[in-house]
Amino acid sequence: MTAEYDTVDHRVAADETTVHSTWNNELDPVCTVDPGDVVRLECRDATNGQLGPDSAAADVAELDIDPVHPLTGPIAVDGASPGDVLEVELLDLEHRGWGYTLVLPGEIGHGLLPDGFPEPAIHVWELDDDADDGVCRFVNDIEVPLNPFPGIVGVAPAETGTHGTFPPRSVGGNIDIKHLTAGSTLFLPVAVEDALVSVGDCHAAQGDGEVCGTGIEAPMSVTCRFDVRSDLTIEQPQFETDGPFTPTGRDEPTFGTTGIDETLRGATENAVSGMIDHLHEERGLTREQAYILCSAAVDLKINEVVNAPNWVVSAYLPESIFPEERRR
Amino acid sequence: MTAEYDTVDHRVAADETTVHSTWNNELDPVCTVDPGDVVRLECRDATNGQLGPDSAAADVAELDIDPVHPLTGPIAVDGASPGDVLEVELLDLEHRGWGYTLVLPGEIGHGLLPDGFPEPAIHVWELDDDADDGVCRFVNDIEVPLNPFPGIVGVAPAETGTHGTFPPRSVGGNIDIKHLTAGSTLFLPVAVEDALVSVGDCHAAQGDGEVCGTGIEAPMSVTCRFDVRSDLTIEQPQFETDGPFTPTGRDEPTFGTTGIDETLRGATENAVSGMIDHLHEERGLTREQAYILCSAAVDLKINEVVNAPNWVVSAYLPESIFPEERRR
Repeated sequence: MTAEYDTVDHRVAADETTVHSTWNNELDPVCTVDPGDVVRLECRDATNGQLGPDSAAADVAELDIDPVHPLTGPIAVDGASPGDVLEVELLDLEHRGWGYTLVLPGEIGHGLLPDGFPEPAIHVWELDDDADDGVCRFVNDIEVPLNPFPGIVGVAPAETGTHGTFPPRSVGGNIDIKHLTAGSTLFLPVAVEDALVSVGDCHAAQGDGEVCGTGIEAPMSVTCRFDVRSDLTIEQPQFETDGPFTPTGRDEPTFGTTGIDETLRGATENAVSGMIDHLHEERGLTREQAYILCSAAVDLKINEVVNAPNWVVSAYLPESIFPEERRR
Repeated sequence: MTAEYDTVDHRVAADETTVHSTWNNELDPVCTVDPGDVVRLECRDATNGQLGPDSAAADVAELDIDPVHPLTGPIAVDGASPGDVLEVELLDLEHRGWGYTLVLPGEIGHGLLPDGFPEPAIHVWELDDDADDGVCRFVNDIEVPLNPFPGIVGVAPAETGTHGTFPPRSVGGNIDIKHLTAGSTLFLPVAVEDALVSVGDCHAAQGDGEVCGTGIEAPMSVTCRFDVRSDLTIEQPQFETDGPFTPTGRDEPTFGTTGIDETLRGATENAVSGMIDHLHEERGLTREQAYILCSAAVDLKINEVVNAPNWVVSAYLPESIFPEERRR
């Protein structure tokens, strides 16, 4: 989980001077770095410390949504101008040994299937670097491989004023691309002078889709190298990654549930509902546990988007996360 | 590309008595098989022989869409009743050495980006089992790994009358799940007595999404084992597969373009448009070639579907399909 780098040029702690929970291109930068500098950013968990390793569902019910998501920054990258591309090479992510996945109901709920999950729920995961290549421990001896990444990496938008941290935008932000692991490189279109990049919302692991609305949320330190690419022009984010594309990094037995519908969202809902039914009925999980596991370890792929009027999305569950005796 | 089986119990040729191009639960079965029987079906290409290895764009412009897709069957599986599940174990797929990918404009066009591609186009691929683990040859020494699967596997719908073969439905059909390679198992909800299963529209390879509207379309023989599972209840298809989840079957360098939009379809369009721009501007392909390569080898993943109001879909291009000197 570490790419090569020699020295850390700048360290940015997470404190009242560096943490912000809206995007705003008039925020003062917390530091200015040169292109090529390595920066280590301390990032708080998505609730800004409202939840910890001992939290329970009652704590989830009382969450204040305003501090979500605490971002660290912004960092000014000297010489980056609108029209340039900010290159963010992810070098290292260091967790604190725990993380959590939430089901958030009601007005602050934002999962794919809000109607099916009216009650708050939480699972606190133990994160263990030493087991196998690193695991996140769930119930029933299920272990999800540890593959940390920052859920939010973004530059300040061109539009003035404050902008919420929930929606991703063309300048990045809450993109939740799980393949942005250490060793990967993200490219973002710069919209203001010096880019003003912020990072946060780290996840110890996540399935493609993040369907219950949260990954394995965890405070982390993120080390990355920022560079300016005036030779590139992009409209929305791009990236280079080696994955992992499966939990083990190689082809492995996988169970799929398929959703077919007139909208991609409907197809996605069908696929995930089918997977939750499967995990509940055949793998011994409660429906809340199943929803949480889908968000942490089940991947959504668009199988076809051209056979009008019905599209196909499938949800992919890797068998390797189960102990051998519980595999299909 | 072959799973284990001892003998073929039934062989079904593709001829005027076995090929049909609509779904209809009143079609007479071409044969009746027992649960557990192995059946080898000859499947025509998606245009029912209108295109071949020497076809050009002018032939595409004159396509008659009515014979699309020729399906082989239906096969009655003795004892399958509505509410049961038909298990289809894919054992072997044998191509004929060639396949094609089309861009179909106008009224019969059905790609993701019809406005950008008003002219018909075709690439005829050479399929070579002997190179590496099997390759499909494109332009500029690009080789897409050969991973054949049937684009269409379906059982007859409960509703009487004729139904088109383009839309997939809950009973399967044109699902285009590229991971249904030999060794995989598909589960379909049975809607009528004896299931009445048909197969066709084989692809030598395809990206998740099949974005230009066609995979690498190829005539093939499909060998599969049919079984009846009265112990299962499903609403839409499910499957078991070992992939491949990347072209090489292991983590490998991959370039991604991200689409962010208020609809999953808009996000998908942005991601694919970004990838076409990249392939055209940085990899030396025409825009038509880029669109075709996206359909054959670029995978669509839903990164997040919960950060309202914007969703994220990315397109993933594996570097390994390029000769080494052309990799990023």
